[in-house]
Amino acid sequence: MTKHATEERVLSAIAERRELVNAAIDEELPLQKPERLYEASRYLLTAGGKRLRPTVTLLAGEALADIEPMSANYRSFPTADDGEIDLLRAAVAIEIIQSFTLIHDDIMDDDDLRRGVPAVHNAYDTSTAILAGDTLYSKAFEIMAETGGDPEHALSVMRLLSSTCTKICEGQALDVAFESRDDLLPEEYLEMVELKTAVLYGAAAAVPAVLFGAADEVVDALYAYGIDSGQAFQIQDDVLDLTVPSDQLGKQRGSDLVENKETLITLHARQQGVDVDNLVDTDRVDDVTEAEIDEAVATLEDAGSIGYARKKATALTERSKNQLAVLPDNEARELLEDIADYLITRGY
Amino acid sequence: MTKHATEERVLSAIAERRELVNAAIDEELPLQKPERLYEASRYLLTAGGKRLRPTVTLLAGEALADIEPMSANYRSFPTADDGEIDLLRAAVAIEIIQSFTLIHDDIMDDDDLRRGVPAVHNAYDTSTAILAGDTLYSKAFEIMAETGGDPEHALSVMRLLSSTCTKICEGQALDVAFESRDDLLPEEYLEMVELKTAVLYGAAAAVPAVLFGAADEVVDALYAYGIDSGQAFQIQDDVLDLTVPSDQLGKQRGSDLVENKETLITLHARQQGVDVDNLVDTDRVDDVTEAEIDEAVATLEDAGSIGYARKKATALTERSKNQLAVLPDNEARELLEDIADYLITRGY
Repeated sequence: MTKHATEERVLSAIAERRELVNAAIDEELPLQKPERLYEASRYLLTAGGKRLRPTVTLLAGEALADIEPMSANYRSFPTADDGEIDLLRAAVAIEIIQSFTLIHDDIMDDDDLRRGVPAVHNAYDTSTAILAGDTLYSKAFEIMAETGGDPEHALSVMRLLSSTCTKICEGQALDVAFESRDDLLPEEYLEMVELKTAVLYGAAAAVPAVLFGAADEVVDALYAYGIDSGQAFQIQDDVLDLTVPSDQLGKQRGSDLVENKETLITLHARQQGVDVDNLVDTDRVDDVTEAEIDEAVATLEDAGSIGYARKKATALTERSKNQLAVLPDNEARELLEDIADYLITRGY
Repeated sequence: MTKHATEERVLSAIAERRELVNAAIDEELPLQKPERLYEASRYLLTAGGKRLRPTVTLLAGEALADIEPMSANYRSFPTADDGEIDLLRAAVAIEIIQSFTLIHDDIMDDDDLRRGVPAVHNAYDTSTAILAGDTLYSKAFEIMAETGGDPEHALSVMRLLSSTCTKICEGQALDVAFESRDDLLPEEYLEMVELKTAVLYGAAAAVPAVLFGAADEVVDALYAYGIDSGQAFQIQDDVLDLTVPSDQLGKQRGSDLVENKETLITLHARQQGVDVDNLVDTDRVDDVTEAEIDEAVATLEDAGSIGYARKKATALTERSKNQLAVLPDNEARELLEDIADYLITRGY
C-alpha cells in the first residue's frame, strides 16, 4: 500500500474511535468536586490529542477477538472465553496515564506550551499541576480496575499498569540525568526512550491480551510491538525536528540542536567525530536562522547520522510488525501494522 | 488503663513492628538504577517515621485472624480460608503512599523541613521530588498487587488503594482552596481532614479485611475506625499546636495562628464571634512572642474553642473504638483501641 493510503487508513481508524474515547473520558473522569482540581485534571485531556494509544488498545482487542473493526460495543467487548469486558475503560486508563505524565513532565522540563495551549502549570499553577497529575494517576488505576471480566486477568493488568508507570518515571529520570552526560551511548539513549516513551505503547497494545487471559507469548509479542514502534516513533520525532519546515512542525526546526538535546542522531554524529556541541552557535530558539540549521543538518546528513536514524526507525518498525504474527490475520491486525508504518512515515 | 500505660503499650507495639517494616521497605523498594531516583524516593522513608499506619495494618490482620500479636510470619500470614498472604507488603504499600503524599505536599506547601531533615525538594530539587513521589506512587501499587491470596480480594484492595489516593488528592485540593475562603464551616474542615488525612488510616485498617475477603460490614467498620481516629488525630494536632511548649513540639507553638491556618478551633471561635484574624498580629513565626501566643490561646480557651476541639476528638475516638466491635475480642483489637486513644492523648 502507498504511504498516502496507509496514512489515510490510520487517520480514519483513529478518527472513528476518537469520539468514543472522548465521550468515555467525559464519563469516566467527569467534572466533579473539588471542581478546580478536576478542571485542571481534565484540561489537557480535553485540549486535544490524537488518541493514538487508546486506538492501539481498541484495535489490539479487535485483532485478538478476531472481529471486524468497530463491529462490537467496546463497553461490552467479547473475550475469548465468552465473557465480556469494558475495553473502552482500559483504553481511557492508558490515555489518562499519558496525560498525567505530560503534565508532570512539563513542570520538570519547564515547558510552557502543550498541544498549542498553555501547559497545566501555566494555565493554573505548579501546585495544581502536581495535584492534577496525581489525581489522574489514581483515577487511571480506578478506571482500569473496573474493566470487568476475570479478576485474575484484571489483577494482572493492574500489575502491568503499575510497572509501566514505574518505568516511565525511570525513563524521565534517565532523560534528566543524561543532560549532564557527555559520553552517552546510542544504546543508553534507546533504553531511555524505551522507558520514557515506548513502554506505554507496549502497555496499550498488551492490555487487551492480558484482560483476555491470552497466552504469555501473545502478551509479550503485543508488548514488544508497542516497544518497537514506540521507539521508532521517538526516533522519527528526532528526524522530523531536523527535516520538516518550521511552519509545518509547529515549532522552530532544529530546536533540539539549539537546546543541545541529545538524540540518536547527535549521538551517532559524535561517534563519527562531528563536533556536535558547536553545530549551532545560537543558544536561543528565537535567535537561530534557517541558514544555520540548514548547515548543521547538512553536516549531520554528510556524517550519515540522519540516514542512520531513519534506518534504525525502519528496522524497529519492521520488527514491530513481525511481532503481530501471533495475531489472527485480520483487518484490525493490518491496521496495527499500518499504525507502525504511520509512526515513521508521518510528516509531523 | 492509665494514659501512661496505654502509651507504653502502643509505643512498644509500634517499636516491635518497626524493624520488620523498615526491613521490608528495604526489600520491596531497594536502591536500584537509576540510583539518584531511587535514592530520592527512599530518602524520606529512611529518614524515620513512626510507622503508625503499617502497625495498624498488621494489628488489624492479627485481630481478624484472631491470633496472638507477633505470633505469625507477616510474609506468610494466615487468612480465614486457610490461605496465606504477604501482609507486610500491604503494610509497606500503605507507608509508601504516605511518603509519596508527604513529598508532593511539601512541594505544594513550600515546606522546607520534614522529620527534622530537609524536604526532598530541598535535599534534591523540585523535579526530582515530583518524580520521586510519582515513583513511590506506582511502586506502592506494584507492591500491593503482590500480596498473594485470592485474586478477587487482591483486585478489591487495588480498588481501595486507588480510590484512597484520589481522595487524598481531593483533600489536598480542598486544603489549598480553603486558604482563600473566609466563610468555611467546621463540617467542611472535617470533610477536608477526612479526605486529606483520615482515608489513609481507613485504608490501613481495612486492607487486611479486604485481603481476607471479610464481610462488607467488617471492611466498612475497620475503614470507619481509621476515618474516625484519623480525624481525631488531626484535631489533636491542631490542639497540640496551641498547648504544647515549643521545645517539646519541635516547632513554634501557635504557628498555625501566626500562619493564619484555619483549624477546627479557629472555625469554632469565629462562630463564637472571636476576631480570629487579629488574634496574633505578628505574621512571621520567627517574630512571635510567647506572651502573644498565651493571650491568643486564653481567648480561644474562653470562647470554649479548644474545649470544643478536645470534645470532638474524644467523641470521634470513642466512635472509632466502637467500630472494632465487629472484630473478635483479642489482644490485637485491644491494641487498636489503644492506638485510637494514643492518637488523642499523645503529647506531641
